[in-house]
This record gives sequence, C-alpha cells and structure tokens, in this order.
Amino acid sequence: MNVVTTVDPRDGRRSATDLTETDEARLETIVGQASRATRWLSGLGRLGRADLLDAIAASLEARRVDLVAAAEAETGLAHARLDQELTRAAVQFRMFGDVLRDGAYVEAAIDHAADTPLGRGPDVRRMLVPLGPVAVFGASNFPFAFSVAGGDTAAALAAGCPAVLKAHPSHPLTSHASAAAISSAVRDLGGPEGVVAAVYGEQAGRSLVRHSAIRAAALTGSVNAARAIQAAIDERPDPIPLYAELSSVNPIVVLPDAAADRGDQIAEGLFASFTASGGQLCTKPGLAFIPTDRGGDRLVDSLREKVATSGGTVLLNERIRDAYETRATEFERAGARVSARPQVDPGAGFTAAPRLLEVDLPGLNAELADECFGPLMVVVRYHDAAELDAALNAVPPSLTGSVHRGPGDDADVVRRLVDVLSARAGRIVFDGYPTGVRVSWAQHHGGPWPSTNAVHTSVGATSIRRFLRPLAWQDAPAWVLPEELRDDYSAIPRRVDGRLTPAVE
Amino acid sequence: MNVVTTVDPRDGRRSATDLTETDEARLETIVGQASRATRWLSGLGRLGRADLLDAIAASLEARRVDLVAAAEAETGLAHARLDQELTRAAVQFRMFGDVLRDGAYVEAAIDHAADTPLGRGPDVRRMLVPLGPVAVFGASNFPFAFSVAGGDTAAALAAGCPAVLKAHPSHPLTSHASAAAISSAVRDLGGPEGVVAAVYGEQAGRSLVRHSAIRAAALTGSVNAARAIQAAIDERPDPIPLYAELSSVNPIVVLPDAAADRGDQIAEGLFASFTASGGQLCTKPGLAFIPTDRGGDRLVDSLREKVATSGGTVLLNERIRDAYETRATEFERAGARVSARPQVDPGAGFTAAPRLLEVDLPGLNAELADECFGPLMVVVRYHDAAELDAALNAVPPSLTGSVHRGPGDDADVVRRLVDVLSARAGRIVFDGYPTGVRVSWAQHHGGPWPSTNAVHTSVGATSIRRFLRPLAWQDAPAWVLPEELRDDYSAIPRRVDGRLTPAVE
Repeated sequence: MNVVTTVDPRDGRRSATDLTETDEARLETIVGQASRATRWLSGLGRLGRADLLDAIAASLEARRVDLVAAAEAETGLAHARLDQELTRAAVQFRMFGDVLRDGAYVEAAIDHAADTPLGRGPDVRRMLVPLGPVAVFGASNFPFAFSVAGGDTAAALAAGCPAVLKAHPSHPLTSHASAAAISSAVRDLGGPEGVVAAVYGEQAGRSLVRHSAIRAAALTGSVNAARAIQAAIDERPDPIPLYAELSSVNPIVVLPDAAADRGDQIAEGLFASFTASGGQLCTKPGLAFIPTDRGGDRLVDSLREKVATSGGTVLLNERIRDAYETRATEFERAGARVSARPQVDPGAGFTAAPRLLEVDLPGLNAELADECFGPLMVVVRYHDAAELDAALNAVPPSLTGSVHRGPGDDADVVRRLVDVLSARAGRIVFDGYPTGVRVSWAQHHGGPWPSTNAVHTSVGATSIRRFLRPLAWQDAPAWVLPEELRDDYSAIPRRVDGRLTPAVE
Repeated sequence: MNVVTTVDPRDGRRSATDLTETDEARLETIVGQASRATRWLSGLGRLGRADLLDAIAASLEARRVDLVAAAEAETGLAHARLDQELTRAAVQFRMFGDVLRDGAYVEAAIDHAADTPLGRGPDVRRMLVPLGPVAVFGASNFPFAFSVAGGDTAAALAAGCPAVLKAHPSHPLTSHASAAAISSAVRDLGGPEGVVAAVYGEQAGRSLVRHSAIRAAALTGSVNAARAIQAAIDERPDPIPLYAELSSVNPIVVLPDAAADRGDQIAEGLFASFTASGGQLCTKPGLAFIPTDRGGDRLVDSLREKVATSGGTVLLNERIRDAYETRATEFERAGARVSARPQVDPGAGFTAAPRLLEVDLPGLNAELADECFGPLMVVVRYHDAAELDAALNAVPPSLTGSVHRGPGDDADVVRRLVDVLSARAGRIVFDGYPTGVRVSWAQHHGGPWPSTNAVHTSVGATSIRRFLRPLAWQDAPAWVLPEELRDDYSAIPRRVDGRLTPAVE
C-alpha cells in the first residue's frame, strides 16, 4: 500500500504520514458504508440534520487550533487567513442548518385532484429528495472551506447525502483531521460509519466516481482535473452529474471617472485582491482594464509601487509554484511588459514573487486573457470605453466580472458593460473586488464554461440543489407521504394548487 | 438540397413536401436570428412573455382543424387523441403564462449588506436569467405536446430563450404548421424572426447543438438519439446541458388484495394504459406484477380476453413498427409465453397487433425487463410480495412506478415497495396508471438513467428551470438591477435577508 506523504511548502520538506492511498477493497467498504448511512441521514429529517450540521460546526471550532496548525504546515497559507477560513467552514455548516429549518429548499408542491381542460387530474405532490451518496473532490487552495469540511460536504449532508471525500494531495493531514472532526459529531449523535469518509490517491478518486452507488460528484479544481473525472464518469453505464468549479479570469473594468476619483483606493483594492492568499483564489482578478489617461496613469503608478515593494508568498505546492513561474514567463513572452516584479529570495520552499504585467489595447491576446493561478495580474490599458466590448468578449467566461464607476461615468456605458459581463459571468460586482465571496442565501458562485460546467452554484444556500432530485407522488395515501407533503403540514413554505403558501410559525 | 418527405403510416404512402433539409447556410441564418431575438424576448419581461404564451395558445387553437388533420396524416394517431393533445399543448403554453405572472420561478433573493462572522458582507442579489437560444428535438410520439409546439418550447420561451426546433422526421408538415402558428403569434406582438424556427434533417440537428450560440438542448427520444446528440455536443469546446427524456419501463405492482378486490377494473385500466396511442408513450407500463392466486388469475384472464379481442393499431412509422415486431419476437424468445395476441391484418400501412406476454418469477430476465416501444406488456406473476424487491431492482430505472393496493394489503409491504420504487423512479403512482401525465405545478416527469439523463423534469411548471441560469449582482446601483431585484418591488415572492416574503397583491 502506498504511503501518503505531506509536504510543507514553507521549506519543501516531505514527510511520510500514517495514511495510505485507498485501495479498491477499502474503497468498496467505504462506499458500502456510505450507502447504508443514507437511511440514517435521511431518517434524521430536516430538523435532525440541521442539528447535525450545527454539531459539525461546533466540532470543527473545538479543534480549531489543531486544524489551523495542520493546514498551515501543509498549505503555507497565513495563520489569520486559515483561522478565518475555518470560521467560514463552520458558517457554511450553520447556514445549511438554517436552510433545513426554513425548509423551502425541498420545493414542496401539492396539486390536489381537480377538473382540468384535459379531464380529471389526479392528486400530484412533488418535493426534492436526496440523490444518495456523493463524491466530493477537495481543492488545493481552500483546505477547509472547499475541502473535506467545505461547502460541498455541508450541502451534501444537508441534502441527506453521505459524502465520500477525495482528499487533495496537498493537505492529507488536514483532510484526515477534518474528516475526524465531522465523524466525531456524527458519532455523538448516534450516527453510523460512512456519513462522511475521506479517500486518498488519484486512483481512488477515479474508482469513486465509477462506483455504481455514487450518485453525483462535485469538484473545485482545474479544467484538466474535471476532464479526468468526467472521463471516469463516462465509463459508467449510467451517467451521473459532475458539478465542477474550474477556471476564472475575473476581469475588472475601472472607468475613467472612478480612476480619477479614487485611483489610490482602487490600486490598494486591486493589489489586495490579486495577491491575497498568493493569488491562489478562483475569484482572483486576472485582468484589470484601466484607462489610458492621467487618472489611469496615477492608479497604475500606485499599483506598481505596491507590487514592487511587496514580498514573496509561499505557494501551495511545488507543482503550482512551477506552473506559476512557467505561466508568468509565457505571459511576458506573449507581449505583456513587466510593470512590477519584486526580487524575492525563493528560499527552500515554494516562494514566488507577485507580478504586475501591462498591455495596451488592442494588444490583449488569448494567451494574456487566460487564467494564471497565482499572484499575477495583467493591467490592460484602454483609450475609450467603446474598446471594452470586443476586449471583454475575448476574455474566457468567468465566475465574476467587476465594474468601478465614478460619479461622472456615463450610465449608458455602465449598462452596456453590465450586458456584456452578464453574458459571460455569474456575478457582477460594482465598485468592489471579486475575492471574498459572501456565504449567504443570494450568493451565486458559478458561471459559463470554463468557469464551471453546470448552471449551479457551489457557494450559498442554493448550492444544496445539486444533491437533490425531484420525486412525485400521485394519489398517494397520506401515511405514505413525507410529512412535508401532507395536507396538514404547515411548517415550511409550499406551493398548493399553484399558490405559494408561506410557513405558519 | 434534399427534399423532406412525409409518410402516411395508415397506408405507407410517401410524398414529397415543399420543405427541404436545412443546410449549413440556412442554419447559420436561423441561429443568428435566434440570437438576435433573445433581446426582444427578454425585453418583453415576465408579463409580456406571459401574454405571448397566451397568444401562442390561442393561435394553436385557432388552427386546430388543420393541425390535427396534418398530424393524423403523419402519425396515424386517432383524431380524438390528437385533438386532446393539441388542447394539452395550449394548456402548457398557458400554464407557463401563469408561472411567469407568479414570478417565483426567478428565485429572486436579496441579501442586504450586513455584518457577518466573516466581516462586512456586501449587498448580494440573485435571480435566474435566460440561458440564451436553445435547441429542442421533437418526439415521434407527440406531434404537438412534445414537439415544435410542445412543453420544451413553451418552457424555453417562458424562460426567455428563443427555441430552434429540430422537427421529427415522422411529422415534418405538422412541425412546419406548428412553427407557423407560433411565429404568427410572435409577429402579431411585433416580434422578430428567430423567436421560434424549425430545422429539418439529422445533419441540421447535429450542427445545431454544435453551434456556439446554442446554450442548451432538450430531447424527448431514444437513448441512441441522446447518445448521438451528446456526441455532437462533446465536439464543442464549451459543454452545454442536454436534458434528455428517454426510455422507461414503468413497472406496475398489483398487490393480492387489489387483484381480489377489483381485478376486472385493474385489467381494464392496464389494457387501456398499455395499448393507448399504440403503446407509444414513454409512460406506458411495460411490466405488470400480478399475484399467482385466484384474484391474479381472474385479473389476467380478463386482461387476456381484452387483448385477444382487440384490433390492430397503426404505429407511428415503419422503423417503429419494424422495431416493435423485432422486439416482440425477442421477448417471446427470451422466455415469455404469449398470453394474448390477436390476428390483425397488417394492411398497407404500419399496423401492428398488441401483445400480452407472461412470465413467472423468478423467470424475469434483463431482456424481458427492458423497454419495448409499442403495445406490448409483460405480466410477471409472483407468489409472494417478498419476491418483488429483487425483481423490481432488476427493472431499469423508470419515469414511474405504480402500486395497486387493496384494503387488506399490508401497509409495511406498501412502504417497502415505495422505498424500492422511489429509488428507481421519478413518480410513484397509487392505484392508477402512469399514462396521462397531468400538466401542473407539482408534476415531475423524470427519473434516474436511462429514463432521463438529468435531475430535471420535462413536464410541469418546474421544467422552466432547465433553461435558466443564476446571476448575482453585488453592490449594484438600483438602476442597473432587473426590477424583480429592486428593494421596492413586491409583485413576486422573494427571499430577503434569508426570509421568504410573499408577493403583495
């Protein structure tokens, strides 16, 4: 059995762990346990699962010191950032607790038997039910919030689906400790093995999505990772959905009056947004469109100075650091001039320097408009807002698109930009930055390919929809129906005979 | 250019039409018009589109005589059935008008800026917006309700998506006339070309889903058709969703006391359900589990007599008739005994005789448990309800599963059956038949593979979800927002700061 190793990106030191890559026999056991756990999880009901999610949040927080220390040693991310990320993971579990208590997410609907233009219609009742065990692939860049203890896991458990988690190879010990924290909360509530389990190794990931008992897969990762997982899914006789959150450039447009009005402030915001967490965020702005005028010049000067005087960042792993250096060199060769790049001592670990590149429209080409994972941003200088349509249409569709406006910027120009960005992004940000995704009811974290492969979100309350399927009952006796679909149930909002009826409290 | 031909299945006569297969140049024009029409359709707003859908329903009904006559000559389906189906098509357009006026389908949500455990959260607002032009593949067996004037078209237009319709080769003239009826309503409201258009020919269908402007595809058809369309989609750089409603066996279980209590009535219902429309319905019951006891024997005798004394049915086309005869012969070879099969004069057209086959548990094998499109049903005799679990788990997942119970049947047996069927079907029918799908808010017409390839419905109000994507606005000025997301808008239900707020009337 292959031993799983862990690497500290701060010094490049590799160590063996007590974990082994999950072989086929062990995978079979784990997926079997997950299948059997479905009944317990579903049997908890909405309110029982809400309590479970709260208990998981508490269990994660009770282990905060150890979890954050493990993640620091495996990701090189800053302590404060990881501490905040653990809070976010707990917030996500608690948010889904609220979603369950609210109950609207099951989309309960009742059509009583009635005469219709097509004759007598039967009684039909519909709600969303769990899909069954799901596979979740952890991300390199969020050891908590998009990994074993992440939003996909929280959404799956909330939906009533056991989750088998493919641990990201960058942080196996953090993954193991996260799974232990969740399992502890499950055990405390009398739950069986298999509600949550982690597996290790690429082969285990492929075998997992090929397993007949797995009903969906979720991934936050690269387009290549999504292709590999989809290829494994395509070997199944029965396709299952893959919800993949992938690659994103996140263009930001700064309009002339915004640059003139608050150029320094925007320079500060852009700098923080593209260098935070080493630029290793799917919402990192990769392109900033800045006017070629005095306000724009001042903004770029200010940004350049911040980058030039900044230090290096430890990147997540050797592969990401190497890919970053390669991509950055490609960007420079593709016609961008280096605007700022501090000299940084790489040390023994995976440290890299941030880079600010610059190009003038119409010099933005496909290479420069692509994603570079890491602390690199390309400033694109434009003369006239009329140039922006074509330029933005050359940027791959993204999770987000942002516009900074000043009081003097033309509303029609803003409307036009919003039209262009709306067609090519899932979230439009005004006078702000795409990083720092709010975890809330109205959030949408998704967008057209290649930012995701599905019309779903992976952040926010509605992300639970990915792990549910509709089921209808026709002329069913009340005692067969889930309580949410019985006539006398009023604790959740429902659609009855076409009319939305709020919950009675 | 290849001329499109039409065949009258009642006499097998083939005639040339004035239509030609859609070549690449024409397809480019049509998809270009559809792309440009998106703005008009979206600009109508919810209420404007609701009026459009009502006008389309009226336009279809105004052409009822001609449309039904065209469909009769191309499908061989009975006049009364087609007349009812046209009503259903109109009902579907009107239902989506109601869905639009209600407005909850956009899932509007507003999270005002607020302090959160993760710091200050920005204002985030989310709703569903149209995907853009979509491709709809018409079905052979529903020339109206699942074709050019069908539910997919109604759902797409309601969502704000222009629809390019691949006409089924079995009914090109009906498709053409349907498209003309819809286009006439669009023109009367001042709409442009391209809101709806039909294309003809297999190559046009493939080119359509490969076209970069097409954002989703919907199909009601065979697994092979879905594979061919998916293969064309896989050639795109950017994947698009395919919503495919495919193959379904629709098992029906008759419990002993139901057979004893109302065997004759159930025999009548089963006969009607499996022979209606020549058994060419995706909800046709292909398997009926009937007890091996006196009640079951009487039920089967009664069913046998109905089948033996019935006549032939004209099937939709030569390919379907030939496939039916081949499959029926395969079923007989696979170990089923012929329970009843009347002698029918095949005539010059595509007439076939219904077949009732019979097999005893545990003799149900994979061949017999598969779908046979056409008027064939296999009666599966069982001794004990305990045998049903394994038998039902050997039936491919289906759109529906049905249970008939009598007053003396054990509730635990019913619960157990519902559990088994729920895991393998999208709609559970009690004491009824799966055919005759009610078009309503709570309907679900979908199920696990191979009955569909997605966790969506193709019938009912929620089928609009297939043609929408979420979009979020962060810190947007009110004048940029769609009216549904402005603070002072109250005409639709919304989720504001996590709480569902009903519409104010």
